[in-house]
Amino acid sequence: MKRKQFVIFGLGRFGVSVATTLSEAGYEVMVVDPSEEKIQEISSLVTHAVQADATDMDTLCALGIRNFDVAIVAIGKDMQASIMITLLLKEIGIPYVVAKASTEIHQRVLEKLGADRIILPEYEMGRRIATNLISGNIIDYIELSKDYSIVEVEVLPQWEKQSMKDLNIRTKYDINIIAIKGQEDIIVSPGPNYIFNKGDILVAVGDNKALQEIENKRHDA
Amino acid sequence: MKRKQFVIFGLGRFGVSVATTLSEAGYEVMVVDPSEEKIQEISSLVTHAVQADATDMDTLCALGIRNFDVAIVAIGKDMQASIMITLLLKEIGIPYVVAKASTEIHQRVLEKLGADRIILPEYEMGRRIATNLISGNIIDYIELSKDYSIVEVEVLPQWEKQSMKDLNIRTKYDINIIAIKGQEDIIVSPGPNYIFNKGDILVAVGDNKALQEIENKRHDA
Amino acid sequence: MKRKQFVIFGLGRFGVSVATTLSEAGYEVMVVDPSEEKIQEISSLVTHAVQADATDMDTLCALGIRNFDVAIVAIGKDMQASIMITLLLKEIGIPYVVAKASTEIHQRVLEKLGADRIILPEYEMGRRIATNLISGNIIDYIELSKDYSIVEVEVLPQWEKQSMKDLNIRTKYDINIIAIKGQEDIIVSPGPNYIFNKGDILVAVGDNKALQEIENKRHDA
Amino acid sequence: MKRKQFVIFGLGRFGVSVATTLSEAGYEVMVVDPSEEKIQEISSLVTHAVQADATDMDTLCALGIRNFDVAIVAIGKDMQASIMITLLLKEIGIPYVVAKASTEIHQRVLEKLGADRIILPEYEMGRRIATNLISGNIIDYIELSKDYSIVEVEVLPQWEKQSMKDLNIRTKYDINIIAIKGQEDIIVSPGPNYIFNKGDILVAVGDNKALQEIENKRHDA
Amino acid sequence: MKRKQFVIFGLGRFGVSVATTLSEAGYEVMVVDPSEEKIQEISSLVTHAVQADATDMDTLCALGIRNFDVAIVAIGKDMQASIMITLLLKEIGIPYVVAKASTEIHQRVLEKLGADRIILPEYEMGRRIATNLISGNIIDYIELSKDYSIVEVEVLPQWEKQSMKDLNIRTKYDINIIAIKGQEDIIVSPGPNYIFNKGDILVAVGDNKALQEIENKRHDA
Amino acid sequence: MKRKQFVIFGLGRFGVSVATTLSEAGYEVMVVDPSEEKIQEISSLVTHAVQADATDMDTLCALGIRNFDVAIVAIGKDMQASIMITLLLKEIGIPYVVAKASTEIHQRVLEKLGADRIILPEYEMGRRIATNLISGNIIDYIELSKDYSIVEVEVLPQWEKQSMKDLNIRTKYDINIIAIKGQEDIIVSPGPNYIFNKGDILVAVGDNKALQEIENKRHDA
Amino acid sequence: MKRKQFVIFGLGRFGVSVATTLSEAGYEVMVVDPSEEKIQEISSLVTHAVQADATDMDTLCALGIRNFDVAIVAIGKDMQASIMITLLLKEIGIPYVVAKASTEIHQRVLEKLGADRIILPEYEMGRRIATNLISGNIIDYIELSKDYSIVEVEVLPQWEKQSMKDLNIRTKYDINIIAIKGQEDIIVSPGPNYIFNKGDILVAVGDNKALQEIENKRHDA
Amino acid sequence: MKRKQFVIFGLGRFGVSVATTLSEAGYEVMVVDPSEEKIQEISSLVTHAVQADATDMDTLCALGIRNFDVAIVAIGKDMQASIMITLLLKEIGIPYVVAKASTEIHQRVLEKLGADRIILPEYEMGRRIATNLISGNIIDYIELSKDYSIVEVEVLPQWEKQSMKDLNIRTKYDINIIAIKGQEDIIVSPGPNYIFNKGDILVAVGDNKALQEIENKRHDA
Repeated sequence: MKRKQFVIFGLGRFGVSVATTLSEAGYEVMVVDPSEEKIQEISSLVTHAVQADATDMDTLCALGIRNFDVAIVAIGKDMQASIMITLLLKEIGIPYVVAKASTEIHQRVLEKLGADRIILPEYEMGRRIATNLISGNIIDYIELSKDYSIVEVEVLPQWEKQSMKDLNIRTKYDINIIAIKGQEDIIVSPGPNYIFNKGDILVAVGDNKALQEIENKRHDA
Repeated sequence: MKRKQFVIFGLGRFGVSVATTLSEAGYEVMVVDPSEEKIQEISSLVTHAVQADATDMDTLCALGIRNFDVAIVAIGKDMQASIMITLLLKEIGIPYVVAKASTEIHQRVLEKLGADRIILPEYEMGRRIATNLISGNIIDYIELSKDYSIVEVEVLPQWEKQSMKDLNIRTKYDINIIAIKGQEDIIVSPGPNYIFNKGDILVAVGDNKALQEIENKRHDA
Repeated sequence: MKRKQFVIFGLGRFGVSVATTLSEAGYEVMVVDPSEEKIQEISSLVTHAVQADATDMDTLCALGIRNFDVAIVAIGKDMQASIMITLLLKEIGIPYVVAKASTEIHQRVLEKLGADRIILPEYEMGRRIATNLISGNIIDYIELSKDYSIVEVEVLPQWEKQSMKDLNIRTKYDINIIAIKGQEDIIVSPGPNYIFNKGDILVAVGDNKALQEIENKRHDA
Repeated sequence: MKRKQFVIFGLGRFGVSVATTLSEAGYEVMVVDPSEEKIQEISSLVTHAVQADATDMDTLCALGIRNFDVAIVAIGKDMQASIMITLLLKEIGIPYVVAKASTEIHQRVLEKLGADRIILPEYEMGRRIATNLISGNIIDYIELSKDYSIVEVEVLPQWEKQSMKDLNIRTKYDINIIAIKGQEDIIVSPGPNYIFNKGDILVAVGDNKALQEIENKRHDA
Repeated sequence: MKRKQFVIFGLGRFGVSVATTLSEAGYEVMVVDPSEEKIQEISSLVTHAVQADATDMDTLCALGIRNFDVAIVAIGKDMQASIMITLLLKEIGIPYVVAKASTEIHQRVLEKLGADRIILPEYEMGRRIATNLISGNIIDYIELSKDYSIVEVEVLPQWEKQSMKDLNIRTKYDINIIAIKGQEDIIVSPGPNYIFNKGDILVAVGDNKALQEIENKRHDA
Repeated sequence: MKRKQFVIFGLGRFGVSVATTLSEAGYEVMVVDPSEEKIQEISSLVTHAVQADATDMDTLCALGIRNFDVAIVAIGKDMQASIMITLLLKEIGIPYVVAKASTEIHQRVLEKLGADRIILPEYEMGRRIATNLISGNIIDYIELSKDYSIVEVEVLPQWEKQSMKDLNIRTKYDINIIAIKGQEDIIVSPGPNYIFNKGDILVAVGDNKALQEIENKRHDA
Repeated sequence: MKRKQFVIFGLGRFGVSVATTLSEAGYEVMVVDPSEEKIQEISSLVTHAVQADATDMDTLCALGIRNFDVAIVAIGKDMQASIMITLLLKEIGIPYVVAKASTEIHQRVLEKLGADRIILPEYEMGRRIATNLISGNIIDYIELSKDYSIVEVEVLPQWEKQSMKDLNIRTKYDINIIAIKGQEDIIVSPGPNYIFNKGDILVAVGDNKALQEIENKRHDA
Repeated sequence: MKRKQFVIFGLGRFGVSVATTLSEAGYEVMVVDPSEEKIQEISSLVTHAVQADATDMDTLCALGIRNFDVAIVAIGKDMQASIMITLLLKEIGIPYVVAKASTEIHQRVLEKLGADRIILPEYEMGRRIATNLISGNIIDYIELSKDYSIVEVEVLPQWEKQSMKDLNIRTKYDINIIAIKGQEDIIVSPGPNYIFNKGDILVAVGDNKALQEIENKRHDA
């Protein structure tokens, strides 16, 4: 199976982060930006780094963009360039175009032009941080649905030195502990005899109310 | 227990996203920004919206910042303002200061000044998107450790209409299915008799190689 | 039958020209522009003149745009604003949206957003002037098809003081004279006995080669 | 007969449109613009493309402007340059100078300097579009005089499947049908037995009231 | 006899100097400038000082410009405004329009627009100063023709304490002494017995060669 | 006797006018300006044209300024550069430094720095033009003292075809006619039998009241 | 004896430092600056704070500057303003004018204008810091002449716990110890029996070579 | 003993002054500034002059900054660059980093980053000048403690022509005269028989009250 090839337009912090992550994972990555300085800085980290203004069809064709599987339009400030490049990429027939939007209207324009996925990094990161702050002990999370989440959370102080069985967690708290990150390793699907240590990070699934309940307990302690 | 109070400096997209998420969750939120226009736009969504340049101690004291539990310095472009406000907040004695950094040097300066948590949203979002793109069917994920992750992934076409038991997933693939998101609801800790439907999203925990193996299978199909 | 109502965004020269022409013809016209100065200048010439930045939905709703039959997006320089307003107008459901484009890519974006008619005034006027210049005696024209046109053209000097019949124009030149503009009035469908005067403007229909032939004759004279 | 030679100053959209239309028609065209980028873009489409600031006599002489038959001053924004070049071209003795004006005062200055033809593209195009919008079915038109016009207009639905004779159009409506554009070809001077089809475009001459009357009929239907 | 009324457009140093000189001589003077600050500064020195952009007919009419005898367009930098105002003033019918030009092309445009007198102050002053410098002792001069001038010149040292008659100036030097400026008063048409004093300024008329000869004598002494 | 050598700093319109006038009169002229473009334009018209920023001593020495007789600091806008160069020129020991001032304070600073002559061209030209305008028929003038002037003035219509003797001009009008500029030549010290022609320009000396009286007569006619 | 009154022009960091030091010492201080913001900030710390552009005589008179004993022109960046104000202050007759210069040419201009004292703070502070750095243990110094200085210097480690007499400092090192700053107090003219303690700061006078010798000894230890 | 090596970042007036003073004293000095012009100007005066933007670690390493003993961050305006370079220098491990601060907050940030010495030149120079102005005859001074100073002061007129012994200065005035700067040389520790001359500068140590007393005497005279 041939590996996917990626092209990234725009070398702001978001674009650079996408490009280097893909490149470190061993994928073929081309980056395109009008700034010669930015191209030079990244050139040793990606497969191809091309200094070009990509807002016209001739340039895109000359770059052989047609052959890429995924294009990421990582242009934030210049909404006009973001729109023009997204249009041209879909006209060329790139199968999957990811575009960064800076506002909700920008997002809707990109949808109309056929962008396959639209990201608002500052907005999404803001929501994630706020969620973490609200429950100071939640380290990361996945929203499974409106009501259910998976969360990383520190063990409650009152649980330390006790076993899961004794605490009767599943029944009493209505959550499910999927994994436990200790100081040194991870225990997936920990057994009922596991005894909590200070500093354990629990990965738990449950409905949001139940998970919130745990946090409240922490402060009652 | 008294609820935490939050103050946010800077109403860029990140700051606005943090502020509105906290506010929607029912917390008391003050926002501070030098732009009168931005203050006016957000004023109906937060507890207090104050138009001020917060880069001097007198202003911060006048605003009563001393009483807040958490301050978020959501200033991206103006590194100097970000540094000055972070310094002043720690001098005032705010217990928890979250600061947005725009570069790695910015991050290190903020660390020296005592910021409790530092975020690089564009960078972190870039990594997350790149990870999603590499395995096109991974929708969201948590890195548990260098080797283990929790991922959301679409069911393999070849698994549809079969039960977990028949497929012998745990043994054969060395992953653990924590939950299944169907069209309409979520099944946490699905039983072995669960029969996969087209379009099911599986939430699985496992080591990264095992999880990657699943994706490879998808393309062999 | 209720008369159509028009709303025009952007008071550049094109927008002003559309607005005043419609208004002089007795139609109800609203104009919207962010420049207070431009609004004040035109206010006495249209039904409503509103100073506003129309790039968000709230503003458009507050202006009651929903009730207009035709919207003209006469914004040239700020491609981003042109795109945002066109998107919003079609989302609101305006039946007929005319949008001015400044480049071909701009034109294609506007098409994707659902604009009903797209105009490039500088480009179209350029073509029209060039056509006039090529045949210095053609004053105005309509392209009927790739091959046929209607043209306004000065009478050939060698035809003066002769009748259409004697010249046998229809047969000999394979054109059809629809009308003749004399010094003082117009003769539609002139009879075969009409005698040409110096300075007559002939309105003729024919295929482009035949029409060009006439011009060539002029220089042979 | 020697073909006319054209020189165009200013490569905005209007200038480019004039230049390429003339060039496609096989004429010798020189373009002059101070922007090296614009000159490079057009160089393959015209006979000569020269990067120069043409606002002084020495430059114009060095370019051999003296030998051109027609000069088009297609400079819009920089009124001062437009005025200076027009002055110099008439001083040199160019027989026919077309100048684009951006305002009415600009137009009057150009007249005083002896420009042979003055165009306001945005203004003229605005009038043309407005006229089209008023009668949604008029596609193009020529103003023959204050009262008479030639228009392109869609056939009325109530006329479909009937002959011109039966409808008695000339007498009843006081218009003259010069040509009919069908799906595939054009019929000039259609005979009285022609039967209208859905979608036919009629090219008609008549006084404006009579032509407007037809449009009113359309809505009565 | 009614005294002339003057209106001055533009309050640069030239305009201010014209305005205050006229005003000090007792004439009625109106000044017009778009800068409020400049208008305020001069307001106590002239009859009327009006803050306005005078580049459109409506403004000029509202100011009652029609009634002035002489208009001075003292606008240097903004050639476009200078041209527009000069055009409008002649269209209004001001009998005498003086316009300041900044370049020779500007001068020729103003001529075409009908300006009655055109001044290039920096250029004319430069010529005057250069002429003074060449003959260090010439203080002021009038060019009567290509060959004849009137000059102010210091008395030659070798002439001091001698009478005009003894020196036989008219014959020997072929110049005519019109007046002598002494320490305290002026003697017009001095008699032949006048004895020169050290420091006398002679006002002499003659051909340029003869006048230059005197200067040469000075250095021979 | 060695001819004077001139150096001019600043190639605005005043500087160019001084430089070219001196150069045309055959003097050795060096010009210095920081603008390469301006230097190139004038290079063929002067002895030396040097592109340099002359605001430091090293540059001035490298240019050999020490050897010039007269320096003209023709810098208007940049008062700071004007001051610095004037200081340095007097420190170097240039015998005669002429400096252009833009304001009265500028003038006083230049005096303190030892400038030998200071000129305010716009101001002086403004006074001259205003004086001309007051008496519309005065073409040029020299102020001899507060009360006496020499003026160029058109002959009064009522004097035409009469001789000076008959008109008894000297006695009756208390002025002295020094010269008469006819259509073709100049008559210096015209005799009493000279008969005035239409269009003669009289060069007259007298006190200002007497000269003004003549002008009043003109309008009585 | 009446106390001196001070006026300070310019509220940069230097001006503010002078103004507050004088004010804290109890003197009457007026400050003048065109920035309203700066005036407001300092207003509570000085006798009078006036927002004004002081570059013209009228303003200075209106402020009553005539009555001040000392004026400090603390304007750094705007050399033109610094020059104009210094000129005006000396014309008014202020007895003592201190002016800050930014360059050596600036300094020489200020001298010509009669400034009584001229300061280059960045330059002078740079020399002072460099001198301190060269001998890392010299904390402050006064240059008495080219060869002699007074310095503050840490005691040499090898001298600790010994008396001045035993060390025979005056003879052996050819320096004179004027004072000793101990942990808690100062001993002026310490007697020969004084025993050095670790950390003593010696204030010594001597020629530069002898003082440098001490520093060298420190490193030999 | 190896001599210290210095590196200076920023070539404003302060940086240039430090660099040239150190260089003149014979030390090895490297300067770094992003402005090529500034680097060229100073290159002949220091050991190494490098044009570089030093705000990233790679550049600092490439320059071999690691080997320097003392770094001076002489950047004033660009607080951000000042902070970044100071951070990097301390991370590299430079033993002694001197940093110029522009404000008090800037100063506190630099402290947190570990700067070993922080200077505010404009502020410190302002204090020094103000102190001099208060006692017009004090030329320079060192603050030994809150109460004691060393000052340079002119001899009192009433002391001239008398000996120190006769005046009984030490007892009567409670000050100690360390040195006397005469017209031509310096006398350190002058004997009691020294007779004061007009213009002698006394270097005296004493408590501030005693020193101020002397100044008061001067005015009583």
